[in-house]
Amino acid sequence: MSKQLSKDRLILVCNDDGIFSKGIQALADVAAEFGEVRVVAPDRQQSAVGHSITIMDPLRASPFKMASGLNGIAVNGTPADCVKLATDQLLDRKPDLILSGINHGSNAGINIIYSGTVSAATEGTILGFPSIAVSCMEFGEDADLSGCMEAARRAVSFVFKNGLPRGITLNVNAPGGPFKGIRWTKQGDSRYEDEYVLRKDPMNNPYYWITGRMEILDEGMEFDINVLNDGLASVTPIQYDLTAHKVFSTFSEMEI
Amino acid sequence: MSKQLSKDRLILVCNDDGIFSKGIQALADVAAEFGEVRVVAPDRQQSAVGHSITIMDPLRASPFKMASGLNGIAVNGTPADCVKLATDQLLDRKPDLILSGINHGSNAGINIIYSGTVSAATEGTILGFPSIAVSCMEFGEDADLSGCMEAARRAVSFVFKNGLPRGITLNVNAPGGPFKGIRWTKQGDSRYEDEYVLRKDPMNNPYYWITGRMEILDEGMEFDINVLNDGLASVTPIQYDLTAHKVFSTFSEMEI
Repeated sequence: MSKQLSKDRLILVCNDDGIFSKGIQALADVAAEFGEVRVVAPDRQQSAVGHSITIMDPLRASPFKMASGLNGIAVNGTPADCVKLATDQLLDRKPDLILSGINHGSNAGINIIYSGTVSAATEGTILGFPSIAVSCMEFGEDADLSGCMEAARRAVSFVFKNGLPRGITLNVNAPGGPFKGIRWTKQGDSRYEDEYVLRKDPMNNPYYWITGRMEILDEGMEFDINVLNDGLASVTPIQYDLTAHKVFSTFSEMEI
Repeated sequence: MSKQLSKDRLILVCNDDGIFSKGIQALADVAAEFGEVRVVAPDRQQSAVGHSITIMDPLRASPFKMASGLNGIAVNGTPADCVKLATDQLLDRKPDLILSGINHGSNAGINIIYSGTVSAATEGTILGFPSIAVSCMEFGEDADLSGCMEAARRAVSFVFKNGLPRGITLNVNAPGGPFKGIRWTKQGDSRYEDEYVLRKDPMNNPYYWITGRMEILDEGMEFDINVLNDGLASVTPIQYDLTAHKVFSTFSEMEI
């Protein structure tokens, strides 16, 4: 790619951990290697909000200085809100790419359904922009994101080289630590087996709090979680068409 | 189906409009024709929360008397929270079916991505229970839900007769008014074209508020929105596996 071209590219960076997180700064740094960067992200932690959007309340956009000195915009909404508002109102031109992450915590298997990180990228895809979600298996703010950054770099290069078919988003995950390779994967069926803990508050009223542990239900290296557990990064092409095409023709012959 | 059998069935009913809504009472009435009913639903309006779950806060469950006199349980969480908490803690046995709705407003085309109604049913499917989402095209609390109730009845009968393959949810929509027929459909690509209105608050600070209008992008009666606009009910089999299988084999041969 020529430097001339890359200077003209505009890349929108969003996340769900909040604009102040280490992960979004790392992803903005990767984005800067490919074009001009705009960061528009939630003003607070928004994990597990899924594809939530704000319709009953107004949204506000405030300037936010990133750790690198970059001027970002903080929005009091969800990741999907940020992408909608940025592309409709806050950017001076349409982005060539939307990146979401780097999330602190993986988004693989069933868990991508709950992910604000993935939903920001999916929202970008719905709006017609090539979009990539990037997540790191390590939760901590001190996680080594170098391998995730390289995985993101590979995915961004892939998209600028090949484009993405309409309706397709890339979901990238990587372990913490240095890059050891990346594989194309499918979304696995692994999930958190949730349990609720029943406790009493100081007024002796009961409340429930979710807890859970990851249950590995997939066999084979075509699945995201197994590739990650093997120390490699994964990239899964995902779609927002939820139609169960594999049963549609059978069902459509059955009486209802 | 024998009455003996139906008495043994337990049906969990949830929604996203809140436990006090007219739609959930109508769906509980349909459920009562097929088995014993438990209602566990959000204590407030939760539209457009998508597949959001509550992980950073405790959940509380409070008794709620339904309009019909049925004892329901109101939860201070999202639709997906309600399904998780009900099946893990609040029900005395596992449900044979989970119903979500009747939503006031359709969940067809792209919009199902944002839907709390659909996410409650999807959560049921993830947890291994046959699950159905039901939505009505009319928003008003005075909408005639009779056609939606019949569409729900057809879908419930279908599931109790045929079962549902693992990982498949039924997404049912119907116009307001009397039942005129039901068709198997695919999720269309139609969506709201969003725009944000920029206004000033009483302190002269700017804020944005989402607005939009439905954009019909699908041609053909295999798509949900077109069937609905033709006055019929639609039922779409959907899945939570987001892998874009149609591009996977091509992508997996390409360098990344």
